[in-house]
Amino acid sequence: MITIVILGAGNVATHLCTALEASSSAKVLQLYSRSRVSKGSFPKDVEIISSLSNLREADVYIIAIPDDAIASFSEVLPCKNKLVVHTSGSVPMLALSEKNRRGVFYMLQTFSKESKVLFSEIPICLETEVAVDIKTLETLARSLSNTVVEISSEERARIHLSAVFVNNFVNHIYRIGSDILKTQNIPFHLLEPLIQETARKIKVLSPEAAQTGPAKRNDKKTIEKHLHLLQDSPYQELYAQLTKAIQDVYGKEL
Amino acid sequence: MITIVILGAGNVATHLCTALEASSSAKVLQLYSRSRVSKGSFPKDVEIISSLSNLREADVYIIAIPDDAIASFSEVLPCKNKLVVHTSGSVPMLALSEKNRRGVFYMLQTFSKESKVLFSEIPICLETEVAVDIKTLETLARSLSNTVVEISSEERARIHLSAVFVNNFVNHIYRIGSDILKTQNIPFHLLEPLIQETARKIKVLSPEAAQTGPAKRNDKKTIEKHLHLLQDSPYQELYAQLTKAIQDVYGKEL
Repeated sequence: MITIVILGAGNVATHLCTALEASSSAKVLQLYSRSRVSKGSFPKDVEIISSLSNLREADVYIIAIPDDAIASFSEVLPCKNKLVVHTSGSVPMLALSEKNRRGVFYMLQTFSKESKVLFSEIPICLETEVAVDIKTLETLARSLSNTVVEISSEERARIHLSAVFVNNFVNHIYRIGSDILKTQNIPFHLLEPLIQETARKIKVLSPEAAQTGPAKRNDKKTIEKHLHLLQDSPYQELYAQLTKAIQDVYGKEL
Repeated sequence: MITIVILGAGNVATHLCTALEASSSAKVLQLYSRSRVSKGSFPKDVEIISSLSNLREADVYIIAIPDDAIASFSEVLPCKNKLVVHTSGSVPMLALSEKNRRGVFYMLQTFSKESKVLFSEIPICLETEVAVDIKTLETLARSLSNTVVEISSEERARIHLSAVFVNNFVNHIYRIGSDILKTQNIPFHLLEPLIQETARKIKVLSPEAAQTGPAKRNDKKTIEKHLHLLQDSPYQELYAQLTKAIQDVYGKEL
């Protein structure tokens, strides 16, 4: 049984705490939160502490706090030569304090308070400074997920960058779709089946094979019509840029 | 029983033919294709014709061919005072020849040869020139789908524009994510759960509520890091543009 202390009480910390407590390989001893948290959000067995002086001995310390705070927090953590990992996509492993054995436990998914998470489907990307520690993280990760990979900080930075595209940027484009419909009082839910199907196709087709539309087929008439519809919209420029981006990539194939 | 002739043999025509033949309200008499088509792709009962001189009498003629060809094709169609509809998102109803009663039967979904389509979940947008014809199209549409709406040509143009954003542009962003991973030989399927969850969230949260990431929280350090990673990439500019687009919208809330 691997004993764990979770440092942080945000979405990632909360979901991870619940998932690890339910796993047969892990025992979450404590969860540290600077501010008061509602005990009801966490498994009963887990002690909630608000002072680092109450920190117990554990096999793994998991830091799940905002990226900017990870480095400085790892310095004030009162333990030495312990396995201390963070959960960030973009922070290098070596940003952690060198007084401990460093590692990363990065779950490639978006977490929100509202919705349950199926951990078995979340890729978990691991990295450790000391080779033997990878076994501990692997045991933990495999008890949660079917997809566990060892990934360097450099690779993880690229994965996180890709994630910003397919999650943050895609979601913003959903918003643009919604805003365009609002101008005509058309409900956004009409677009939902198309959004779901666009995502679903990726499971069976490469994005290249799935690409369709006026930009790809260089349908100038439709593109002009769309730019005209967007003439007083903040989204006209982005339409032109995304159309150009598609044409830059597929242009040679026309 | 509403009798139908389908004009065209592409993805939309093929899926629609199969779906209408399976419905209890419709009978597809003929499918017209200029070029030879494999009979196996269509229901056995449907007569495949390659000359318009063999066209039979029907209640509805559905033109499912590329947008650019719709207007001129509707002129050469040898019938008069019939209900003739097209299936395009971006072509106005009045682009059809005025010698017939015009209409639109627009299915808001992406169709590909490879995958089956669940018609019951596809919004169908209807428009007719003659008020009484809407009943016929509604009967057809409701026999296929749970979501049937009457939509003007102007509204449909906006819906189609939104669809270009949430389908074409989103799919291109999937490709960018894939390309970024390729530079490190990381398989694209690692991003799949995130892509699915990003789309799934839209069912329970508005895109505004679901927005996260460095652009929204104005995390300059991460944005700089990402722009640096993309320094020799064709995608650096688009990253900057999409980041700016998010900040333009959410900036006031920071």
